[in-house]
Amino acid sequence: MTSSFDRHAHLRAKPDAVAAERAHPEARVTLVWRGKSLLDGERRNGLWLPLPEAPWAIEVYLGRTADGHPRFAADLSNLEDVEAYAEGGRFSDLMRAGWGMDPAELHDLAYARGMAHWHRSTSHCGNCGTELDTADGGFKRQCPGCGATVFPRTDPAVMILVTKGDRCLLARQPRFPPQMYSALAGFVEPGESLEACVLRETKEEVGLEALNPRYFGSQPWPFPQSLMVGYTVDVEGEDFQLDEEELEAARWFSREELANPDGFFYPPAMSLAHHMIRAFIKGA
Amino acid sequence: MTSSFDRHAHLRAKPDAVAAERAHPEARVTLVWRGKSLLDGERRNGLWLPLPEAPWAIEVYLGRTADGHPRFAADLSNLEDVEAYAEGGRFSDLMRAGWGMDPAELHDLAYARGMAHWHRSTSHCGNCGTELDTADGGFKRQCPGCGATVFPRTDPAVMILVTKGDRCLLARQPRFPPQMYSALAGFVEPGESLEACVLRETKEEVGLEALNPRYFGSQPWPFPQSLMVGYTVDVEGEDFQLDEEELEAARWFSREELANPDGFFYPPAMSLAHHMIRAFIKGA
Repeated sequence: MTSSFDRHAHLRAKPDAVAAERAHPEARVTLVWRGKSLLDGERRNGLWLPLPEAPWAIEVYLGRTADGHPRFAADLSNLEDVEAYAEGGRFSDLMRAGWGMDPAELHDLAYARGMAHWHRSTSHCGNCGTELDTADGGFKRQCPGCGATVFPRTDPAVMILVTKGDRCLLARQPRFPPQMYSALAGFVEPGESLEACVLRETKEEVGLEALNPRYFGSQPWPFPQSLMVGYTVDVEGEDFQLDEEELEAARWFSREELANPDGFFYPPAMSLAHHMIRAFIKGA
Repeated sequence: MTSSFDRHAHLRAKPDAVAAERAHPEARVTLVWRGKSLLDGERRNGLWLPLPEAPWAIEVYLGRTADGHPRFAADLSNLEDVEAYAEGGRFSDLMRAGWGMDPAELHDLAYARGMAHWHRSTSHCGNCGTELDTADGGFKRQCPGCGATVFPRTDPAVMILVTKGDRCLLARQPRFPPQMYSALAGFVEPGESLEACVLRETKEEVGLEALNPRYFGSQPWPFPQSLMVGYTVDVEGEDFQLDEEELEAARWFSREELANPDGFFYPPAMSLAHHMIRAFIKGA
């Protein structure tokens, strides 16, 4: 899952170029309000609206579509009532709606939502507390007090498929929908490689010693600001011990059971875990 | 490169447990002052000092050594004069000193330095500007104003070895030591997979279309807070066009030339780029 836009990052630092993008007849904006994305009534697509005079505090230049049409994101969280801007759509939970959306559309809206979240959570300087200015088409914030520069934040995290021969270990976080099981996951810490994080998280979450982490792939997960990096591992032993603060259940699943799920399901195609589990079923 | 400590992350949320770690007779602390690490006179090792009454504002529980000895980091940047704490060592640039250090020692000190940097740059709430409290052994900061929680920040970045048959493309950033060439590098943006970032950065920095990114490995690079993820790519064509804001030179190097460097060098063993280039020389 990755945005389909060409970011045209070289334009960002040129205010005239960003203004020209904004004035393009095919320029459009997607709106985010307090973490919710403006989708059509059926929540299948985003509403991409012409750019009006801006009533919002935050606007980000996302780049161009494959057709060369400029795309922006705006965050309206400074407004109490945004019905007037909904244009027949509604502000919806993108992660939930994403299950039924076209992947490319979901990617683009998630990118917009991630940038909006960063602006909302980064309005003040971490160094001195002063309110930050915005620059570079929304990709930089600067402190008029101490001069600090702040760039968008992305938190790297690992997704871990623990395997043992013909079986893999899936677990449930308390916040999951009922009956959903998935791979293990955890955030990378300062001073850690991705591989070291895989070993630590496997030990912490299920008490097993992971061996031989194998890279699977990566995907952005801007809910609100993660980057998932997937690894498949083998483990010593099979008797796991749950970290009950993180997980409410776990169990071993055979390839055959995963191929014909009964009484459980695993995450949908928008999640990296889905693709890791599918590859495992196919014998990878 | 990754820290050798067992982080004992489950202890962090228990103030009594962290206090017991601190009171352990073999507990030691490494000091960081305004980005510099306290090293011995020859800058070969860190000075790990007994824990005194703390004159510093920030203290982080790093975990335990393989021998079970607790280790802490402290940031003294709130003090103007720290000579009295140097204990015969000196506050030094860790990245520079790292070229001659034992890898395990460098990892541990870099982890400490990364945590100290995060605290220094995150003393105020990004949401409302209030001064943050510290919790969880230094792994969490909390806002007494709006209730926001902030975790340590790590910026994922890609390292890209562009290859074409028997040759690879190395480049110079203006800040590099004279005659040093390295792989391309760039930060991941919100809404981007690591692979998409590899393609975008290759295009932006040298104007070439990258194909088929292959994962190499990862390492923390807390100077101040990056995580490097390495990929080897092939490219279409070979006539590159430099982004002159990022790079001052680039050229193709054959395997033979890299095996016997003359008039140039590539990064030392502390860098992921070193290992990528070494693997390329060996035919990977």
